[in-house]
Amino acid sequence: MNPNGSMDTFFNPRGVAVVGASTKNLGHHVVLNLVNGFQGGIYPINSNYNEIEGLTCYAAVTEIDGPVDLAIVIVPAGAVPGVLEACAAKGILHVIIESAGFSETGPEGIALQARCDTIARAAGMRLWGPNCMGLVDLPNQRFFTFMHPAIRREGLLPGRISLIVQSGMMSAIFLAELGRRGIGVAKACSIGNRTDVDECDILEYLLQDEQTDVVALYLESMPRGRRFARMARQAAKPIVLLNGGQSRAGATAAMSHTYSLAGNARLLNSVLVQAGVTMAEGIFQMMDMAHTLSMIPHMNPAGRTAILTLSGGAGILMCDALEINGIPIADLSEETRRKVGEIFPPWMPVANPIDLFPAVARNGRRVAFQGAFSGALADPGVDALVIHFVAGLEADMPDFQDLQARARKDGKVLMFWLMGRREGSRTFRDKARAAGIPVHDDALRIGQCLRAVARYQAHRQSAPGADTPPAQITAAPSLPIHQPGIWDEYDSKMLLATHHIPVVTEFLTDSSAEAAILARRIGYPVVLKGLAPGEAHKSERGLVRLNIGAPHDLDRAYTELRDKVGDRGRVLIQQQVTGDYELIAGFLRDPQFGPCVMFGLGGILAELEPDVVFELAPLDNQAAVQLIRAIRNRRLLTGFRGKPPLDEVAMADLLVRLGDIGTRCPSISQIDINPLLITKGTPVAVDATVIMEGA
Amino acid sequence: MNPNGSMDTFFNPRGVAVVGASTKNLGHHVVLNLVNGFQGGIYPINSNYNEIEGLTCYAAVTEIDGPVDLAIVIVPAGAVPGVLEACAAKGILHVIIESAGFSETGPEGIALQARCDTIARAAGMRLWGPNCMGLVDLPNQRFFTFMHPAIRREGLLPGRISLIVQSGMMSAIFLAELGRRGIGVAKACSIGNRTDVDECDILEYLLQDEQTDVVALYLESMPRGRRFARMARQAAKPIVLLNGGQSRAGATAAMSHTYSLAGNARLLNSVLVQAGVTMAEGIFQMMDMAHTLSMIPHMNPAGRTAILTLSGGAGILMCDALEINGIPIADLSEETRRKVGEIFPPWMPVANPIDLFPAVARNGRRVAFQGAFSGALADPGVDALVIHFVAGLEADMPDFQDLQARARKDGKVLMFWLMGRREGSRTFRDKARAAGIPVHDDALRIGQCLRAVARYQAHRQSAPGADTPPAQITAAPSLPIHQPGIWDEYDSKMLLATHHIPVVTEFLTDSSAEAAILARRIGYPVVLKGLAPGEAHKSERGLVRLNIGAPHDLDRAYTELRDKVGDRGRVLIQQQVTGDYELIAGFLRDPQFGPCVMFGLGGILAELEPDVVFELAPLDNQAAVQLIRAIRNRRLLTGFRGKPPLDEVAMADLLVRLGDIGTRCPSISQIDINPLLITKGTPVAVDATVIMEGA
Repeated sequence: MNPNGSMDTFFNPRGVAVVGASTKNLGHHVVLNLVNGFQGGIYPINSNYNEIEGLTCYAAVTEIDGPVDLAIVIVPAGAVPGVLEACAAKGILHVIIESAGFSETGPEGIALQARCDTIARAAGMRLWGPNCMGLVDLPNQRFFTFMHPAIRREGLLPGRISLIVQSGMMSAIFLAELGRRGIGVAKACSIGNRTDVDECDILEYLLQDEQTDVVALYLESMPRGRRFARMARQAAKPIVLLNGGQSRAGATAAMSHTYSLAGNARLLNSVLVQAGVTMAEGIFQMMDMAHTLSMIPHMNPAGRTAILTLSGGAGILMCDALEINGIPIADLSEETRRKVGEIFPPWMPVANPIDLFPAVARNGRRVAFQGAFSGALADPGVDALVIHFVAGLEADMPDFQDLQARARKDGKVLMFWLMGRREGSRTFRDKARAAGIPVHDDALRIGQCLRAVARYQAHRQSAPGADTPPAQITAAPSLPIHQPGIWDEYDSKMLLATHHIPVVTEFLTDSSAEAAILARRIGYPVVLKGLAPGEAHKSERGLVRLNIGAPHDLDRAYTELRDKVGDRGRVLIQQQVTGDYELIAGFLRDPQFGPCVMFGLGGILAELEPDVVFELAPLDNQAAVQLIRAIRNRRLLTGFRGKPPLDEVAMADLLVRLGDIGTRCPSISQIDINPLLITKGTPVAVDATVIMEGA
Repeated sequence: MNPNGSMDTFFNPRGVAVVGASTKNLGHHVVLNLVNGFQGGIYPINSNYNEIEGLTCYAAVTEIDGPVDLAIVIVPAGAVPGVLEACAAKGILHVIIESAGFSETGPEGIALQARCDTIARAAGMRLWGPNCMGLVDLPNQRFFTFMHPAIRREGLLPGRISLIVQSGMMSAIFLAELGRRGIGVAKACSIGNRTDVDECDILEYLLQDEQTDVVALYLESMPRGRRFARMARQAAKPIVLLNGGQSRAGATAAMSHTYSLAGNARLLNSVLVQAGVTMAEGIFQMMDMAHTLSMIPHMNPAGRTAILTLSGGAGILMCDALEINGIPIADLSEETRRKVGEIFPPWMPVANPIDLFPAVARNGRRVAFQGAFSGALADPGVDALVIHFVAGLEADMPDFQDLQARARKDGKVLMFWLMGRREGSRTFRDKARAAGIPVHDDALRIGQCLRAVARYQAHRQSAPGADTPPAQITAAPSLPIHQPGIWDEYDSKMLLATHHIPVVTEFLTDSSAEAAILARRIGYPVVLKGLAPGEAHKSERGLVRLNIGAPHDLDRAYTELRDKVGDRGRVLIQQQVTGDYELIAGFLRDPQFGPCVMFGLGGILAELEPDVVFELAPLDNQAAVQLIRAIRNRRLLTGFRGKPPLDEVAMADLLVRLGDIGTRCPSISQIDINPLLITKGTPVAVDATVIMEGA
């Protein structure tokens, strides 16, 4: 593939050849779309015509007599390889294949796509598509696409959000829906089958694009997830992702818990959230979050919000919507309450939400609103103001430019929760947005958007300056043994212990008498386990005896387990550890994201409602600490119910080592530490499984 | 209060007096609203006018010379008691007080409202309000409200959903927003301060109202929650509730876990869900759920859904939206796949979602759609069809009446996911709805609405015929002791054991020697606990010694605990039980819902993310079984990870007994069984706390 710098030619070609140009259907659409806006040369290619839309039509790209560096191909799939060869001969090294009929149609299409790929690689050509709708650049009025030219009548607005969309028809739908919602777009890129150019190539380009402030994506898979995550972490612009297909049945039955917890979307979500990506749920949430992020470049990540309303009920519903989304309701200062209180009747103590109704009745709308607004802006404990407004009930609209200027001066964020008549609402919305103030009609959406802004700001403040992988990775670690497949618990923990991960005290034992000696050394009560080759479910198979308190119980347990595991098995005696709670840690190689470390809660309830997070491995100490703090139930780790807080330094060290072991030894496919018991804040691996390739 | 039958006069009065009628402001609005639609007598009352809007104006209600049985009062608050006395003198026994300035304004207002109440009670008068917007009846064009007459221009539609709204301004906002969304309304009732008429009175009326199919409510509290829940359980119509204020800081620090788990909204939510109420999150979800429930009277509760779309991406997003909401994606039968497959190209196996694009390319839109539609309708494994549609891209609209007739014949439910141009969408939506087919533009909303329908249908099928409280409640149970306040664990479990709730084997002990004898009888390992009067946090205070395996450990533990608890304390020796998992059960008296039983998961993670459900006590066996199955993580109880399933009969029996004990003994304010350990499926109370009134 060519260096990525050449991506610019797709967006800014000197001339464009339209291979498959026509006077009807899609081939006509492409020409019409180019004629309506593109300033460079346009060269229709079709041997059946002399001209199309007043442009000279050529029989082949090789006959073009002007500067041309991009071809849009819309001929039947079978003819595409010939077209690519002609393009290569002409020196056209950027091609958007918009035709369908490739890998999406089965084996023959896959072979056809591979042929295209081979031709392109040999020529040093970049391929965009196939099976895509191409690209649209609204500020520059470039429509390199077969979308119906009527799409321009859908109210499309130039703006500063760029889109990358995997699914073909969705890209047209997204454009139309954004127009309907009055949201402006910079570039919209439909990427189709991604035989060469993919979301990473385009993301890299858009992150440098001066017309793009936010990148929003719709993807159903992310084959170069690792690259995507690394780019996102370094990005200086917000990235919003709608990941379709989260719910589908995930990978087939997996052997380790770490692997099954990764699921179809959990790992992707977790890694990308760590990298600062805003994950959206649903099309409209994606659009509204992207739009809000484009309008709010800065906010204190605390996001403490004051609410101004004329309706007590609306204030209550807004509180609910904010708290569901983890946005705190600001505590107004004594000073603010005193100052704002001057416009309220004496029986009405000022609180947040600020219910303006009694103040309006006393002082009129202007005085009441301005008093409350100024008071909330001046309060150092307020980061954002949400103003509830009913359009159409009052004739006069706020002076948005003035409100926004005052809010910006104080470093505060404004948002409107707008209800009321449709016509009035539209004008209100457009004027407010022109001043950079987001407007939504749904309280929950305001909560979701404020959460997106708060998280993105927190990410910006915490992101390290550079993405330097830990330097200490030099040689593969020495493995105590070398067999492929599932290692038993003893061998697995030996590998961990060799690399300074704390494990429970344990010994293999060959006789009941020896077990008794070891038990005295470990101290009763002890645990006895039978290790059978390849057996991953000891408890379910009755191979675990907990709470052995005396020698005669030990003797009986030894005899039984020895019988069960047989000659090829082993018996393990172990200190019985009672932790304050159970965690789980792991390592795996993900097909999209490569080596990753997992961390989360253990125990039976965590199996029912997993609370695990993932990060690319290797990871440094800072990333490990962030990972630890990223679980949903982080409260458990900070001294919950009088238990000592987790030793974060020890835990982070364990995760860094786990990532190093896995990364440095390519034959390790998975490591599972489950449970990782926490006693007085200190982690110890009580059971573990290593899975080596070649099983 | 009068019998509820008299509620009808509020909605169907022969004549209405408007006390505070005027030619301007709110007093004018009320008259204008009446003139525009009400067919009965209208009597403006204001001594300053001779006539208003062409109607004779009276100085007082007592002077009215026609039949009048309802007064709408909009005079200043201080004048209201006098008005009520005049109404009583005239025999007007139904009064809507729309004036503000009562209990919502502080102590003086509370006193004023109490005076009104006293006058009304003495006269046998029903009061609606004060501080409310009255009522609107759209099918009959009755506006008994001071809302601005321009509200009629907001596109209000008569329909079959009735509203009960606690907050004043929200009722006007709801009406306008429903109009904007093209959703029809029957009656809208703004209930204000509820000094007499409350949501229960109106709900009872609307459940009998022939013009109402669904009742939707916005409430911020539910003082007669118990009555509401009982009515909801018996209701033959869907009830949708948006409960504002869920997020607020709940009750102050509570002494028992059961009480704190009840929280502000968890108990309300749980009890009402058990009673078949649809709980909405946010205003628009409430509206859309109510509307969908009004259009879909029947569905198989399994809700297995087939998806028809022209966009693969849309199909994927719809799957996500359905699965998030627990709606299963239908498995198409072999027969369906074969039949529908005939219209598809051979390389495209038919699956659900049915992506019609390749079939359209092959056979045209009509054949493709009709083939897939017929196939899905005929499939016995399909209960609902969601059809994705882009308005404006095709000229011809579906024949909604025909689609709906065919779907109904096969007992299937149809919904449209509609995207596209605004104008086209509006026509499409209105036509589809006229045929009884719900249309939404948000995939997630379709998932939420289908879930609401599926749950309501499941409730209808499971609801018992009559709400008969268990008959065995006769006498208060005998209490082993009679002190008020917090009982210690031993006394608490003695109460439970007396009433046949299984508790762990345990004895009080007065000496180390006795403890040793008891330990031999119980069997090592044992647990020793120090019981100090009023101490609810034994573990945190170091008063619990687990896992005592030998006599010398027992001796040391006894000495230490005896020292700690002192003369007034007691020492308890207990069998050490290791369960498969921990549950929790409890009883409490809720201020809104009265005696309730709680059931849920125990353990530390369940404290972080509570999974508990509540039901009114006493409860019968069937309700107890439903309660057990209502927890989020019900999978844990059915044989998770090879553990034996919970003995539902024993568990239900325990909950019934718990409810009986609490209900029959009014001095019990709370009972907490925590943990309730489950061993081989059988529950046993390991620790418990009883709290008696008078603490």
